Amino acid sequence: MKSFVPVPDNSDFPIQNLPYGVFSTEANSQHRVGVAIGEHVLDLGAVKIFYLKKYHEALSANVLNPLMSLGCESWAEVRRITQNLLLEGSALHANQALQQTALVPLSSVTMHLPATIGDYTDFYSSIHHATNVGIMFRGKENALMPNWKHLPVGYHGRASSVVVSGTPIRRPLGQTLPVDGADPAFGPCRLFDFELEMAFFVGGPPTELGDRVTVDEAAKRVFGFVVMNDWSARDIQKWEYVPLGPFTAKNLGTTISPWVVPVAALEPFKVDNFPQDPKPFPYLTHEQKFNFDIKLEVDIKPANGVATTVCRSNYRNLYWTALQQIAHHTVTGCNLKPGDLMASGTISGDAADSFGSMLELSWKGTKQVQLLGGESRKFLQDNDEVTIRGFCRNDELRIGFGSASGVVLPAKPFE
Amino acid sequence: MKSFVPVPDNSDFPIQNLPYGVFSTEANSQHRVGVAIGEHVLDLGAVKIFYLKKYHEALSANVLNPLMSLGCESWAEVRRITQNLLLEGSALHANQALQQTALVPLSSVTMHLPATIGDYTDFYSSIHHATNVGIMFRGKENALMPNWKHLPVGYHGRASSVVVSGTPIRRPLGQTLPVDGADPAFGPCRLFDFELEMAFFVGGPPTELGDRVTVDEAAKRVFGFVVMNDWSARDIQKWEYVPLGPFTAKNLGTTISPWVVPVAALEPFKVDNFPQDPKPFPYLTHEQKFNFDIKLEVDIKPANGVATTVCRSNYRNLYWTALQQIAHHTVTGCNLKPGDLMASGTISGDAADSFGSMLELSWKGTKQVQLLGGESRKFLQDNDEVTIRGFCRNDELRIGFGSASGVVLPAKPFE
Repeated sequence: MKSFVPVPDNSDFPIQNLPYGVFSTEANSQHRVGVAIGEHVLDLGAVKIFYLKKYHEALSANVLNPLMSLGCESWAEVRRITQNLLLEGSALHANQALQQTALVPLSSVTMHLPATIGDYTDFYSSIHHATNVGIMFRGKENALMPNWKHLPVGYHGRASSVVVSGTPIRRPLGQTLPVDGADPAFGPCRLFDFELEMAFFVGGPPTELGDRVTVDEAAKRVFGFVVMNDWSARDIQKWEYVPLGPFTAKNLGTTISPWVVPVAALEPFKVDNFPQDPKPFPYLTHEQKFNFDIKLEVDIKPANGVATTVCRSNYRNLYWTALQQIAHHTVTGCNLKPGDLMASGTISGDAADSFGSMLELSWKGTKQVQLLGGESRKFLQDNDEVTIRGFCRNDELRIGFGSASGVVLPAKPFE
Repeated sequence: MKSFVPVPDNSDFPIQNLPYGVFSTEANSQHRVGVAIGEHVLDLGAVKIFYLKKYHEALSANVLNPLMSLGCESWAEVRRITQNLLLEGSALHANQALQQTALVPLSSVTMHLPATIGDYTDFYSSIHHATNVGIMFRGKENALMPNWKHLPVGYHGRASSVVVSGTPIRRPLGQTLPVDGADPAFGPCRLFDFELEMAFFVGGPPTELGDRVTVDEAAKRVFGFVVMNDWSARDIQKWEYVPLGPFTAKNLGTTISPWVVPVAALEPFKVDNFPQDPKPFPYLTHEQKFNFDIKLEVDIKPANGVATTVCRSNYRNLYWTALQQIAHHTVTGCNLKPGDLMASGTISGDAADSFGSMLELSWKGTKQVQLLGGESRKFLQDNDEVTIRGFCRNDELRIGFGSASGVVLPAKPFE
């Protein structure tokens, strides 16, 4: 399968990928739906004439929600038509004038949030991460909470604070408890952290309150995946989170990559699900594979410095699948909307260089993480840029996610 | 101040109230913005000609978000014009034909969610409730968590599952731990509960991520209040909530009353803020009164039975004000959007008949709550209807919130 649009070696965006995003240009500030191909974006609104009429509205929208709501059979059909359009010898290949308007250089676009996110949920599905955090805060014997292997623990996050890659994130002020048993303090967060995560957008028509999405139906609800940085203020989180969970420590910003990679593009990288013992309840049991070999990396780049890859992990480390996450999320009757975002939780591997947060890499601040150029970190410093990348690769193919980046701005003083 | 529209004695909706809601009728299924007056709704789109042109779009909208976004000076002006329109001798009073279209009997309308709720947050701000729950689960000595008097504890809830009064709520299925240390079980919730709450809608233009709303600016951000039932599956909650907070135990449905009472209507019922010791940090300190004497009641009505008022509480029991809730919510930089909903948490008083949940009224199921007609309850049974009411009253005036009602449907069996 070869596109007439040039795709450089090692590109994230070959014709087998075709991730969806929302872009604008300096010349046209209208937000538009497109797919990435090589070093270009195909403006789907500009080529909608090649698709069935029932897709025109979704392809001309300024967010992906209408396309997400159409459901998985429509996603397959739209993808097939797009792929055909980009092949050598296609009608678009033959039409240079249309290419001029419909193929926009990636270098000239501004990317936006791909969807209006109705609700954002964050799970806690990496067994290595949950175990690491458990050991640090409760000791080796009680590392995993009793519920952890019975259900995909998760919590509702703040949808408004999800931002697209490139948005700077300000170091927060907040309350912390520097000394146990003493009075709390107020000031800039001192333990500012990233969390390496992935997330998927929910698709299909809205479900009704009171209805469940079964674990078998759930696959039809996964539109596609992004990589994510769930910025975290560890010292604020530690003081506030009992008993109702993380709140202001997490609602200061959550960064996602702009390109949503369809599940269809990940098919060649499906791997066995993580072995589960004990066997989960029937409402969480599925036979089909829904785990993926997605390589994940985190870079830290100090101001005026060079980037160091501080973590190499993999999506396959997740104990709970996206299908189990959806089935559990809706088991009590929670309704879903297209554009809901569900994140994995920090994805750590079992090796010390595969931990997905500074909390784990510096083991609660007890050791330095070395950076190239002589600097080191226990947590993030002002003006550090954090970049999270994801990609699948085998001998023939690379399917990339692009990246989720953000710079840490200094705290705003309290007036 | 007297309206030409009849207002029965003891009505929730005198001309001093004028709560906003979104309604439709059988004859016109379009969702429209209106205010309640006596036993009618004034369709604001139908009388927009009397308002400045800059308000026309908000008054013709199908949700309250555009009006909410205009900010508090606009709310004051719109309210003044509406009040004048409804006075004896007004232009509307003189125009019988317009009254025919603009004044719709309450008995003929269907009410809808008043706004598109971007994000929904639930606080935990009643000291009596937090103390009760603390005593039950941790004993008298450790009843309040160390952070509780330093910050308004809260968590992000599920916006999609907020529904308007009258929507039936299905008893959920889920995981529970019937015996500590044994295996979890799966099945219908056995400890299904209501939570008596109030909530306010956030207004004003959207704020930027990274910006704080100060406690002094916060008053400009409170559009108005509703009463709320935060349905809760206690047995599911207990098993799932450690360490990330309530999740599926709460996302099965949250019921709000359809009429949003403006803060201006509550002015005559302002009371001193709850005394706070220790004094909170400066970012949470404000001098102005922002507490209200709002009487709250909860009825349970079994199928084919009569309603029993099982709880009489008051909004003034809240330790943390709405202004402190907003300042804390945004202290780390969380951005707000008009239409965000922020709830109080269960509002319990200090008397045993003022507790705002069955968990407290039955003291963790150790005693029966007697209902009229001979029945009794520890938790809710199928087909019970729960109604939460709120109203302010002094010698001259009653400002009512209407009610938030819902019937418990039997659980759907697992296929």
